[in-house]
Amino acid sequence: MQGFIYHNPTKIIFGNGAIEKIGEITAPVAKKVLYLYGKNSIKENGIYETTIKSLRKAEVEVVEYGGVKANPVLSHTREGIKLARREKVEAIVAVGGGSVIDEGKAIAAGVVADHDVWKFYDGSGTTVKTALPILTVLTMSATGTEMNGGTVITNEDTKQKIGIMSPRLQPLTSILDPTTLYSVSTEQTAYGAVDAITHLLESYFTKEDTYTPIQDRYAEGIIKTLVEITPKIQVCPTDCSCRASFMWAATLAWNGLAPSGVGAWNAPNHLIGHSMSALYDTPHGASLSITLSGWLPWYAEQNENNKKQLLQFGKAIFDTTTVEDTIEHFRDWCRLIKSPTKLSDIGVDESGLVQIAKNIGENAPLWGLPQYTAEFCESILRRCK
Amino acid sequence: MQGFIYHNPTKIIFGNGAIEKIGEITAPVAKKVLYLYGKNSIKENGIYETTIKSLRKAEVEVVEYGGVKANPVLSHTREGIKLARREKVEAIVAVGGGSVIDEGKAIAAGVVADHDVWKFYDGSGTTVKTALPILTVLTMSATGTEMNGGTVITNEDTKQKIGIMSPRLQPLTSILDPTTLYSVSTEQTAYGAVDAITHLLESYFTKEDTYTPIQDRYAEGIIKTLVEITPKIQVCPTDCSCRASFMWAATLAWNGLAPSGVGAWNAPNHLIGHSMSALYDTPHGASLSITLSGWLPWYAEQNENNKKQLLQFGKAIFDTTTVEDTIEHFRDWCRLIKSPTKLSDIGVDESGLVQIAKNIGENAPLWGLPQYTAEFCESILRRCK
Repeated sequence: MQGFIYHNPTKIIFGNGAIEKIGEITAPVAKKVLYLYGKNSIKENGIYETTIKSLRKAEVEVVEYGGVKANPVLSHTREGIKLARREKVEAIVAVGGGSVIDEGKAIAAGVVADHDVWKFYDGSGTTVKTALPILTVLTMSATGTEMNGGTVITNEDTKQKIGIMSPRLQPLTSILDPTTLYSVSTEQTAYGAVDAITHLLESYFTKEDTYTPIQDRYAEGIIKTLVEITPKIQVCPTDCSCRASFMWAATLAWNGLAPSGVGAWNAPNHLIGHSMSALYDTPHGASLSITLSGWLPWYAEQNENNKKQLLQFGKAIFDTTTVEDTIEHFRDWCRLIKSPTKLSDIGVDESGLVQIAKNIGENAPLWGLPQYTAEFCESILRRCK
Repeated sequence: MQGFIYHNPTKIIFGNGAIEKIGEITAPVAKKVLYLYGKNSIKENGIYETTIKSLRKAEVEVVEYGGVKANPVLSHTREGIKLARREKVEAIVAVGGGSVIDEGKAIAAGVVADHDVWKFYDGSGTTVKTALPILTVLTMSATGTEMNGGTVITNEDTKQKIGIMSPRLQPLTSILDPTTLYSVSTEQTAYGAVDAITHLLESYFTKEDTYTPIQDRYAEGIIKTLVEITPKIQVCPTDCSCRASFMWAATLAWNGLAPSGVGAWNAPNHLIGHSMSALYDTPHGASLSITLSGWLPWYAEQNENNKKQLLQFGKAIFDTTTVEDTIEHFRDWCRLIKSPTKLSDIGVDESGLVQIAKNIGENAPLWGLPQYTAEFCESILRRCK
């Protein structure tokens, strides 16, 4: 194990019906908030009504701002910052999935910054010094942003999808109410599972330290659970036990515990997936199942340590004993839950592949992965089957 | 899964050599601290010198108070409170194992209370409203107190060993430096492992909800690691990889994650073990391996659900397939690491057994376990083999 600092002060309020508490939780923090959301789906499933009622009852003034995109974009973030400044809101209440919360964080930091918000993301080294308090009501489990300091924004002009981490962007409180997931589609459930699993796999496979049994087993326990329950949820979307385990699993997958102590690690699958999303607006999870499908066999071939780690993964999750079987089981599972494993599944042809590889190569240095050149990435992408 | 609130704001600073940072971490919090420790062992292994030097360098004034007992006692706590008041310290720096940190928490709460500190423990319902900031340098891994709000104190007059939990007693920062464990004895290492494992097993076996795969696997991953590495550490006390995994495992075992979402649960093995310690000054971990040795077979006999959970435990940890094999493997492992499994191992005879059972029966209602009467506990204790 290697040294680390772990500090995760976000308070989690978990349970069926917990969204009713947003008012009483927000009131001691702010008298006026920006209520951020995505599409109108929260108006259809009752989440909007319940949370707005709760905030009003607690005498919290609400400035509504909807329309966050699935891969949240810079232009909408900038408009949100203008609105939040004009209305002098004191906190952000983000009601939605990872995209809404990520944009909420960007707005929280941008409102109090004396420069454009993209400067936090553009690799110039500008860090977040302060931000408005962030409260979240999670309605789609996937990214783990509800219990970490991460945020990912897409710049439509430069076609870059960039993520940053800051302790100042850690939500104060996040409400995890498994009943809000009942209306999440089969497709989004699959993508959420793949996203959470990939979060765990990044450090599991790229870690510097080779002896980290606590961290490995932590990851394996969560992955195995997601592998088991995701197809069950797709058959029965209101299975409250499975939805609850899914919700907590996705949060624990990316709250900083998994990589603590593994030493240096990186996120090549996210790097590759982000370029797919930036160019093709591919759902994040879908881009990751395609990426893993090509990256895993490449990874296992590199050296004996990698092979051993992949076999450990296979044994723990699929009870497989060879690299080939493990990868085939992984791809089969993706197909079972209907998450794509090849570029043609999302309509990308040969020229698209080259374009994606080029985009990855351009962003790779920002991710600390200069070896992921366009040429190298082409070879990975050709393995996605 | 059931609803829960999870909030653990303790900052963990983990790594070889991390104890040197105690000064810079303490300085922003307090200018004068009570430096609490146990026996003189920290003066022999260099921990005292390093931490005192670090505090002085950061210009933190230190009021030393040593002599905390292995099961920390009320009289010494009361004296510490008097000293802390007289010296007007602003924070507690607890340098030691669970006992030192637990007494540090009691002093932190007692200093600012307008009543005797035992009132927090005596079951009268008096809760901790405020406390001095608590910083810890952990030198023995076992109880998990470095990352939770728990504290256990023994009242020598009433022969009661009672634990309480409060968010106000959560350490601000805890330094976990695996090199401090190098001098922990074979015996104390065994007891620490048993303690950490028992923390996980309490909710694992007594949980209200029967479908909690995330929590089960989290516990199994940590237990399996401790089962594997404890004998290795006993052979090679300076195995830095194993000591580091041990240290982090014990912290994660009792930081609130394992029972989050399992619904109601209780801690019968701790109840029984505490009475053994209160009457015979048995090391905490030793009392728990004896208790589990008798409690596990009783538990498995009660109903099919219990049996299933014990078999799941056996499969995950020892790759066993029957109740008998699982319990025998558990006892064998205790013997391997030299933690006792029967009362005679600690010199308790028939009259001692009756006396312990009586003490348990008296304390049981405080633990929410009124069914643990003296008579019932005698039958459990007779099973310890």
